Amino acid sequence: MTITAYERLTQSFSRIACLNEAAAMLSWDASAMMPPGGAEARGEQLATLAGLAHEFLASPELGEDLAAAQPQGDWEDTNLALMRDAHIRATALPRDLIEASVRAGRTCESLWREARKTSDFKAVEAALAEVVALTRETATILGTALGQRPYDALMSQYQRGITSEQAAGIFARYEAFLKTALPRAEALQATRPAEHLPEGPYPEAQQAALARALAQSAGLDFTAARLDISAHPFCGGTQTDIRITTRYDEQDPCAALMGVLHETGHALYEQNLPARFRRQPVGEAAGMAMHESQSLIIEMQAARSDAYLSHLAPLFGQAFAKPVTSAALKSRLRRVARSFIRVEADELTYPAHVLLRFRLEQALLSGDLTVPDLPGAWNEGFQALLGITPPTHAQGCLQDIHWFDGAIGYFPSYTLGAMAAAQLMAAARRALPTLDAHLAQGDISPLSGWLRAHVHSLGSSLGFNEILANATGEPLNPAYFEAHLTARYLT
Amino acid sequence: MTITAYERLTQSFSRIACLNEAAAMLSWDASAMMPPGGAEARGEQLATLAGLAHEFLASPELGEDLAAAQPQGDWEDTNLALMRDAHIRATALPRDLIEASVRAGRTCESLWREARKTSDFKAVEAALAEVVALTRETATILGTALGQRPYDALMSQYQRGITSEQAAGIFARYEAFLKTALPRAEALQATRPAEHLPEGPYPEAQQAALARALAQSAGLDFTAARLDISAHPFCGGTQTDIRITTRYDEQDPCAALMGVLHETGHALYEQNLPARFRRQPVGEAAGMAMHESQSLIIEMQAARSDAYLSHLAPLFGQAFAKPVTSAALKSRLRRVARSFIRVEADELTYPAHVLLRFRLEQALLSGDLTVPDLPGAWNEGFQALLGITPPTHAQGCLQDIHWFDGAIGYFPSYTLGAMAAAQLMAAARRALPTLDAHLAQGDISPLSGWLRAHVHSLGSSLGFNEILANATGEPLNPAYFEAHLTARYLT
Repeated sequence: MTITAYERLTQSFSRIACLNEAAAMLSWDASAMMPPGGAEARGEQLATLAGLAHEFLASPELGEDLAAAQPQGDWEDTNLALMRDAHIRATALPRDLIEASVRAGRTCESLWREARKTSDFKAVEAALAEVVALTRETATILGTALGQRPYDALMSQYQRGITSEQAAGIFARYEAFLKTALPRAEALQATRPAEHLPEGPYPEAQQAALARALAQSAGLDFTAARLDISAHPFCGGTQTDIRITTRYDEQDPCAALMGVLHETGHALYEQNLPARFRRQPVGEAAGMAMHESQSLIIEMQAARSDAYLSHLAPLFGQAFAKPVTSAALKSRLRRVARSFIRVEADELTYPAHVLLRFRLEQALLSGDLTVPDLPGAWNEGFQALLGITPPTHAQGCLQDIHWFDGAIGYFPSYTLGAMAAAQLMAAARRALPTLDAHLAQGDISPLSGWLRAHVHSLGSSLGFNEILANATGEPLNPAYFEAHLTARYLT
Repeated sequence: MTITAYERLTQSFSRIACLNEAAAMLSWDASAMMPPGGAEARGEQLATLAGLAHEFLASPELGEDLAAAQPQGDWEDTNLALMRDAHIRATALPRDLIEASVRAGRTCESLWREARKTSDFKAVEAALAEVVALTRETATILGTALGQRPYDALMSQYQRGITSEQAAGIFARYEAFLKTALPRAEALQATRPAEHLPEGPYPEAQQAALARALAQSAGLDFTAARLDISAHPFCGGTQTDIRITTRYDEQDPCAALMGVLHETGHALYEQNLPARFRRQPVGEAAGMAMHESQSLIIEMQAARSDAYLSHLAPLFGQAFAKPVTSAALKSRLRRVARSFIRVEADELTYPAHVLLRFRLEQALLSGDLTVPDLPGAWNEGFQALLGITPPTHAQGCLQDIHWFDGAIGYFPSYTLGAMAAAQLMAAARRALPTLDAHLAQGDISPLSGWLRAHVHSLGSSLGFNEILANATGEPLNPAYFEAHLTARYLT
């Protein structure tokens, strides 16, 4: 019995996926379980797995199969196209450039760790310039190979199916919205006295039990998932063995509860990907922005809704034996405040942080902005968007690791995801008239079921805008996000 | 700069070792952490890793490097010899035979699970005959390739450096010893009233805390190790990231405490292997019997000694807030009793279980014993050795999984390890006159230090008998084990 080129490809990608699954598990372990002594060996294990996955993906035999493979049907055609994309990305870059980029990223990252402590941009300037130069070279080569603009070639590593041009229009519209929305939201907030949550401690074990119950009622299947602790919360593992993590602050239970619901959104996406295309590119999630839309629709759209918080308040009171009102939960979970730090930003101003990075990283890549001018451009941009200027570079352009280890094109996904979440929620509310009544019972499952049908089960068979168009009737439209923010913060 | 064939080999083996380390971690996870939903995917991940490791080990390029490599010094010569052995084992067997063996083992194992429940040997007889026939073929081919007798080719998979001929003599001597020792030990025991431990429960958390403290005081470095729970306790992970597991019975804390000390012995061996030869065959532990000697010297020789138990009794009392005497610990931990079940056997009679298997599996392999005759031969042999006959086959030849999934040549290591432990302990006592005084303070570290110098740090640079000869002045000599049993059970 002969095997076709396409079948051989599915076997190759399945093997690559198994290596990546092993790596995902070992990465989870490194964050959640591993004793410190294991770090060096773990690095070698992960490098071996990544090296082999790359070797298989870049192999000439795989290239020959790609050239010979015949179309097999809708999903299979898309699968083949995604395989080609992955092979091009794995082979387009000269080895020298890859190695130089890894070295430069490592050097820059370690200088950045020191530079951030002392808020000394100069200490990392030359290293960052090197990273940017190498990233520019990478983007140019990938762009040529993929027929995309250089920045788009980077952006599409994280999220296919949306261009920087489309994103630029969306961000410009948000900027205009924010200009009037932010002062109005602040003024409105000032007229409403904040209610405080009862004093802690909120014991870790009780937080964990409640977080687990909430995740479960959102549809997470714990016979195929775990919840553990790590310094930086994430959703890892594999489709049938999800590992979500959180961290507990005994003074503030809300961070862990909302964090777990956020990761639950990611987890539901992974658990409900199409099993028939397990370990195939077309069976994977449709990208980082779409993934973020799934975490944010659970956390921001569903769990922070009036309906859900009215249910959460008494549960919360029971779990910790402290009375709490839903007004206090709202004060805590829906407070607007201009912040220098992205990861502390609220829902309304968060996209401003992303917008600034989106513009600056494009300017760095094109050469319109030089690295020495970055801190000034950051501070000016921040002032223009949010009306405040970071007092130090540590609170400014040094705050995040990503640029310093070479990740450019990564940030837009956060905000594109937030906007997609609002658009999907609006469509789900139209399709499910009782959605809010269910949320008021703490029941997220009708929403999860709708997402499974309209997003999760599609895998990567459609692109970002196509999935939205299918599910909601139109490609990404920022009006839904504005309407959501208006309803929550301006009325 | 050119790279020599030997250097290329060390790189190849390092990569193979990284794959094996990844697999070891994933296996630990499967036993200690994984939700049930992950089982199928984990199977695929482990099969992929094992398949790649085998592919690299069997590759013609590696064979060419082995042919071309030049001697480089003592350890390197041994490393090369061990590499050759591994390559021969990976290439000697035809693919058909490997696949047939895997299939037959899987079928037989699943029939065995049912057969054991109903004690129905007939239900698994044909499948076991198939396993034995394929194992015979495997042993013959490996024996020819390695210049060993067929059974020795299987035995040396688990423990190199000791032949079945040497083992047969050692077992025969033990048999003679047991004949008079067992009734004498029982008679002596009968004259001494048993003291009982206080009634439970012994809470799991307190057992875990004490077990951890004991492991630490034996020298286990928890910055490079974890202790968790699994159904079947084991020591897994890698040299710098050891994962030991246990299970807790709230009615009987001794099982977990001694179990953890047993795994600690394995862990110390791994943690103290020569770092300079990390991921090379010569840097690995010297085999399963040597490994078992390291767990048993901690558990049986050190921790069950009069000295250590005199220290443990008050600790035990503190940990559980229940007064306990060292006499009660001795009654619990050093009781002799004829048992049908190997894993429940005491130190004195355990080797009889192994001896029986050692003889029967050789007879099966040679064809002197047919599979249908196995249950009868088991029962006769058991009666001859221990004077009791299993009432059912589930308590007889069906009790262990190993034969039924094709593991032959595996059992002798347990008893060779127990004997080596006694011999090493005798040498350590000669070298360290204060050893028992330290044990009476709960301090196992002088023993651990001696083992590190004389066993652990040697890796596989010497064989089983050579390590013993170096450390104790002579190759394996069962007289030390007899002396130990005599001192503990006959006086």
